[in-house]
Amino acid sequence: MSDIKYAFGLWTTGWQGADPFGPVTRPALDPVENIRKLAELGAHAFTFHDNDVFPINATPAERAAAVDRIKAASAETGMICEMVTTDTFQHPIFKAGAFTSNDRDIRRYGLRKVLKQVDLGAELGATTFVMWGGREGVEYANSKDLGTAHARYAEGIDTVAAYIKAKGYNMRVALEPKPNEPRGDIFLPTIGHAIALIDTLDNGDIVGVNPETGHEQMAGLNYTHGLALAMYVNKLFHIDLNGQNGPKYDQDLVFGHGNLLDAFFTVDLLENGSPNGTIAPYQGYRHFDYKPSRTEGVDGVWESAAANMKTYSLLAEKSKAYRACSDVQAAFAKAGLLDTSTTMDAGETFESFLAGEDPCIDTLGERHEGLVHLHQLALNHLIG
Amino acid sequence: MSDIKYAFGLWTTGWQGADPFGPVTRPALDPVENIRKLAELGAHAFTFHDNDVFPINATPAERAAAVDRIKAASAETGMICEMVTTDTFQHPIFKAGAFTSNDRDIRRYGLRKVLKQVDLGAELGATTFVMWGGREGVEYANSKDLGTAHARYAEGIDTVAAYIKAKGYNMRVALEPKPNEPRGDIFLPTIGHAIALIDTLDNGDIVGVNPETGHEQMAGLNYTHGLALAMYVNKLFHIDLNGQNGPKYDQDLVFGHGNLLDAFFTVDLLENGSPNGTIAPYQGYRHFDYKPSRTEGVDGVWESAAANMKTYSLLAEKSKAYRACSDVQAAFAKAGLLDTSTTMDAGETFESFLAGEDPCIDTLGERHEGLVHLHQLALNHLIG
Amino acid sequence: MSDIKYAFGLWTTGWQGADPFGPVTRPALDPVENIRKLAELGAHAFTFHDNDVFPINATPAERAAAVDRIKAASAETGMICEMVTTDTFQHPIFKAGAFTSNDRDIRRYGLRKVLKQVDLGAELGATTFVMWGGREGVEYANSKDLGTAHARYAEGIDTVAAYIKAKGYNMRVALEPKPNEPRGDIFLPTIGHAIALIDTLDNGDIVGVNPETGHEQMAGLNYTHGLALAMYVNKLFHIDLNGQNGPKYDQDLVFGHGNLLDAFFTVDLLENGSPNGTIAPYQGYRHFDYKPSRTEGVDGVWESAAANMKTYSLLAEKSKAYRACSDVQAAFAKAGLLDTSTTMDAGETFESFLAGEDPCIDTLGERHEGLVHLHQLALNHLIG
Amino acid sequence: MSDIKYAFGLWTTGWQGADPFGPVTRPALDPVENIRKLAELGAHAFTFHDNDVFPINATPAERAAAVDRIKAASAETGMICEMVTTDTFQHPIFKAGAFTSNDRDIRRYGLRKVLKQVDLGAELGATTFVMWGGREGVEYANSKDLGTAHARYAEGIDTVAAYIKAKGYNMRVALEPKPNEPRGDIFLPTIGHAIALIDTLDNGDIVGVNPETGHEQMAGLNYTHGLALAMYVNKLFHIDLNGQNGPKYDQDLVFGHGNLLDAFFTVDLLENGSPNGTIAPYQGYRHFDYKPSRTEGVDGVWESAAANMKTYSLLAEKSKAYRACSDVQAAFAKAGLLDTSTTMDAGETFESFLAGEDPCIDTLGERHEGLVHLHQLALNHLIG
Repeated sequence: MSDIKYAFGLWTTGWQGADPFGPVTRPALDPVENIRKLAELGAHAFTFHDNDVFPINATPAERAAAVDRIKAASAETGMICEMVTTDTFQHPIFKAGAFTSNDRDIRRYGLRKVLKQVDLGAELGATTFVMWGGREGVEYANSKDLGTAHARYAEGIDTVAAYIKAKGYNMRVALEPKPNEPRGDIFLPTIGHAIALIDTLDNGDIVGVNPETGHEQMAGLNYTHGLALAMYVNKLFHIDLNGQNGPKYDQDLVFGHGNLLDAFFTVDLLENGSPNGTIAPYQGYRHFDYKPSRTEGVDGVWESAAANMKTYSLLAEKSKAYRACSDVQAAFAKAGLLDTSTTMDAGETFESFLAGEDPCIDTLGERHEGLVHLHQLALNHLIG
Repeated sequence: MSDIKYAFGLWTTGWQGADPFGPVTRPALDPVENIRKLAELGAHAFTFHDNDVFPINATPAERAAAVDRIKAASAETGMICEMVTTDTFQHPIFKAGAFTSNDRDIRRYGLRKVLKQVDLGAELGATTFVMWGGREGVEYANSKDLGTAHARYAEGIDTVAAYIKAKGYNMRVALEPKPNEPRGDIFLPTIGHAIALIDTLDNGDIVGVNPETGHEQMAGLNYTHGLALAMYVNKLFHIDLNGQNGPKYDQDLVFGHGNLLDAFFTVDLLENGSPNGTIAPYQGYRHFDYKPSRTEGVDGVWESAAANMKTYSLLAEKSKAYRACSDVQAAFAKAGLLDTSTTMDAGETFESFLAGEDPCIDTLGERHEGLVHLHQLALNHLIG
Repeated sequence: MSDIKYAFGLWTTGWQGADPFGPVTRPALDPVENIRKLAELGAHAFTFHDNDVFPINATPAERAAAVDRIKAASAETGMICEMVTTDTFQHPIFKAGAFTSNDRDIRRYGLRKVLKQVDLGAELGATTFVMWGGREGVEYANSKDLGTAHARYAEGIDTVAAYIKAKGYNMRVALEPKPNEPRGDIFLPTIGHAIALIDTLDNGDIVGVNPETGHEQMAGLNYTHGLALAMYVNKLFHIDLNGQNGPKYDQDLVFGHGNLLDAFFTVDLLENGSPNGTIAPYQGYRHFDYKPSRTEGVDGVWESAAANMKTYSLLAEKSKAYRACSDVQAAFAKAGLLDTSTTMDAGETFESFLAGEDPCIDTLGERHEGLVHLHQLALNHLIG
Repeated sequence: MSDIKYAFGLWTTGWQGADPFGPVTRPALDPVENIRKLAELGAHAFTFHDNDVFPINATPAERAAAVDRIKAASAETGMICEMVTTDTFQHPIFKAGAFTSNDRDIRRYGLRKVLKQVDLGAELGATTFVMWGGREGVEYANSKDLGTAHARYAEGIDTVAAYIKAKGYNMRVALEPKPNEPRGDIFLPTIGHAIALIDTLDNGDIVGVNPETGHEQMAGLNYTHGLALAMYVNKLFHIDLNGQNGPKYDQDLVFGHGNLLDAFFTVDLLENGSPNGTIAPYQGYRHFDYKPSRTEGVDGVWESAAANMKTYSLLAEKSKAYRACSDVQAAFAKAGLLDTSTTMDAGETFESFLAGEDPCIDTLGERHEGLVHLHQLALNHLIG
């Protein structure tokens, strides 16, 4: 599996453990040290928010110095900066949103902050710009005009995409949906909602999604299905892999440490595409957005980072064996998964179609596809 | 509120109470009697699945006789048939899906069944054709090729829309999302996912969504937010109102008997549009898709039907008073909801925008909008 | 409703707004000012964690000075200290638990910290000692020996109760269940689990529960049902009222700002007991454990505090009218709620019972109780 | 793993596939054939509801004939009847509950039906009597007096236990909790709630719980934790193993086909007890309560039955290797799981305990236990 390229957000291994009920448990991690250590562990790329590297109120000189250190670390280690993103959620100014704030000054400040990070990303060679609008939501349905909020969210995203085009950057935007937390309800709560809004944009051609495993699972949704829809509509522009145990707070566990069976099918889809090839394998970085548990010390940070890659690699190997297994292929065939036929014939008229004779529905109702057998084959490949 | 037009599915009041752990508790209800009784209670329209009116294996003569009785009841009562839909979920032939079945004969049978019901709907004057693909899903992620499944789902929906256009019917299609039940994971699980697929269709202009209160809430999502997105992108073609208490089996309670506060905001949005007018009031029928509790006798069926309309009407009155209240309008103004400004000026260049000076973020971070106060005002209007 | 006594935790109005994705948005609130302001708003009592009043590393002199200020504020305002609790969750030492830590030094430190706060509570006249073991859990099922963890949790609780008895304090212990957050899974996740452990204690007679609205609802459970069980087994020793919208992060909304219908039934049970009197009205303080939304400024803090009391009072009035309504009483009677008969007769033998003739089950199966009608009556009283 | 004894409910493999949205998809299965086939597959025992074997309105002669066939099948195959249970949920008479019905005639009929099945269970040698009160709940909090409902539930359970004692049967009662479905909220929704009520019974010594994997997971609770609490308080009297994917309808998947990681820890606990031996291994049958997916034909029924045993056996083997692994034991030791020390010393006085010196909390706060490392070791054993 040496050809799988892994990436980490600097904020993942850099997370110090503060949560709603307690302060940090680990010392701050210098971004340069972070990049070096991830490189040592075998990662290929890193990603970051602006304020992972310099504070929100940094002077231009401070900012430049911090960026230079990142560039140097990148050059030293060979770690690529594949994606950047902007922090529009921590500072109190964003407490009621950035792009969807009811205050125009805040929206303008937020948009400007985003565009500056687009520039920095381009400078560093990042090809994806992720936007997670964690504060773009409400606790109460009347906290925003729901029409205007969506319009402003669309305006903001579209402006970022227009800016990228205007500057000629080799960069695409990827929206990261999340249903809730830190807001009671966040706009664009799922992969579907994000794509629905993207489809209204003037510059939506360079805007896609960055689905995070746990975010979809917080809504009880099937992550692999969500990826499949995004891939089907050519909108899977980036990916955030981690672990979650169903609808509760955002756990950001190590990939595979939550819903393991779905993690297997996620890897299977990303590595191998869909069984009959209708969906092609994913080409981007396997990017982890997780948090080392607050109980861990510094050692645990690096063990958990390694565990993400180790687990993904293991699942990738197993998915290859699963696809190569003749029993599995036979079960695919029996269940009809390898068939790519359309429902109507090419050129078939409604008249001839409707004139067709109905089958014996009771006989056809007895058809069965061996789906439990097929699933147990997957399980056997996973744990057998 | 005499101008609000209510509609019911015949399968709602006609539900006999069979559930996964027990058989029917109420006698079958003749569709004609159903229409008459709903009319008496003050409903304006009815809707139905083909097999609510005639069995799946009806002969043409049996079908025609059944349809004639419905037409007569409609004429007698003045009840309009505003929407029809097709049952592609009950018969065992559909156990693994209709449009997304791995079996072509089943897909063709299912599509033909749908087109026939489109014809019947047009014949009865229905202007909306709802499609709920309750069996279009899986229990196991490898039960279908996830790319082909989406492609076939798209083909099926697009074909229905093309057929409507070809026949010149005054009818639009509305997809009804649901995250799960009766399948482990259903495709197009939310409003967002449905719109994302619609946007890929050749005939997507006449395809929108029919969001059901409880279906979105089964995924822990905010129903009013979902409606707002659908309205913002002009895809709210129909609506299914009912009640649900969060992520669990599909309860199909009376509207308002689940999340009452969200029901208030739903009615407020539908009746009044968004506060600053960006979203206009909803124009379609207020359609209920609920189930009278299995514990109820025949009396309870009609009491529960009336309760849907009574509760909606009460909430509509309260929403009018809420909007008319000067305190509420002042709170809207203070919070900035009445402002429709864009973030960038018309014609503003990136250069001038980026050259703008940043505000003092610490000062601006202290801004607050009185959102809890505003919410409490809504609550006071609801229960005060 | 002037006789309803309200209490607030100092940490509620004192919450400064730090959440997992951003720092504080409000200035620190002096405990004395907090008590004064709550008194002004009409509250009758306050409660606190040790470290709401003095820091974890306070010297004895600092601690004494802080406590003296609280006592003075209490005397000045007439606000009673009705409950105290200990912070065993913020400091990194507790990151993997206090009573259930795998480290004996940590357990001993945590227990000692708790006992000292018991002493302080007694000194201030508190009659309830709440224990929320927010860190007593795991992210991974193998992080603790699950038998030993329960044994140690039981030892710790029992020791606290034994200490109270040994000191002769007029105080009872109330455990506060929560299913998750900040740990992946917390031990004693629900009211039921807590009581099940309490029943094993030597000093369980003075140990009960302190159920929080949102905590039960985070598990999708019915809060009013949970209270009813706790009251039925005489274990409702204290109560934490707030608001939540189903399984997601702990929202700590204003009471009534989440599931409003259930809030009505909660108030109805607390104020009026159960309809036939089997459960008596609740006697303790109506205690709020909520957080003013992070979006709010200082004004919003006090408006939200007032909103808790206002909403509870409104619901209490409505519940009185609901119970006094003859239609409701008739519906109660029809449904059989007023009947307190046992199933077997007093002294009935198994022989005679089993020899009894079965009823006609099909006839009896047609019995129905008007439950939707009754629920709609409640809704009408709530919003009519 | 040849010594693991597996049991199945006859209603599991006998399930014909009717669900809320469609009728049966498979032919009825004769109980005798069912027993024979399960025996062939390697099961050791069967369990049943009364009405799995004879209809609710069977004459005594019909009932006797049906029972004789079961006895013969048991003798022929060597399959033991290890548990029986009563159907108090299907017939409309039970639509609003059996033991908690507001109607005394229904309660008496239900109790008599249960006692008769106790007799039959004893006759067949069953040592466990399971009670699942699936209809003992409400849709609306005012449908029952919540005090009387709990009192009647307690009376009913206590009576069954008293009857067992009176008859001298070698049998214990096991309550099966479930949070919802088919009722909106079911009483005794979790393991904890059930034990809390059991602790109030006169004959609670022979009443424990029968936790079902999916039922706890429908409330987002950790099943393994629930088992551990039940084992800690000596109330795990029976077990229902299956699979579920979080809070949604009751899926009843094959064991391991839902949350696989938790299934591993469940098996690890049942087979090996807790790491330091505080909880001993489980001694009862490994009983499956699942449903073969509705999509499956008759072959799929038996494949899915076999899959339950195969998966459990695989996990059992892996759990043995996990425990035998020196790295795992070292990680257990490092994390402190092997230590069984109490928090206070035997005989330690409060005075001496409180006089003890506090540790340096900042130093102790840096302690970390390698919990992610330990979890990854488990994962490696599971899939490595």
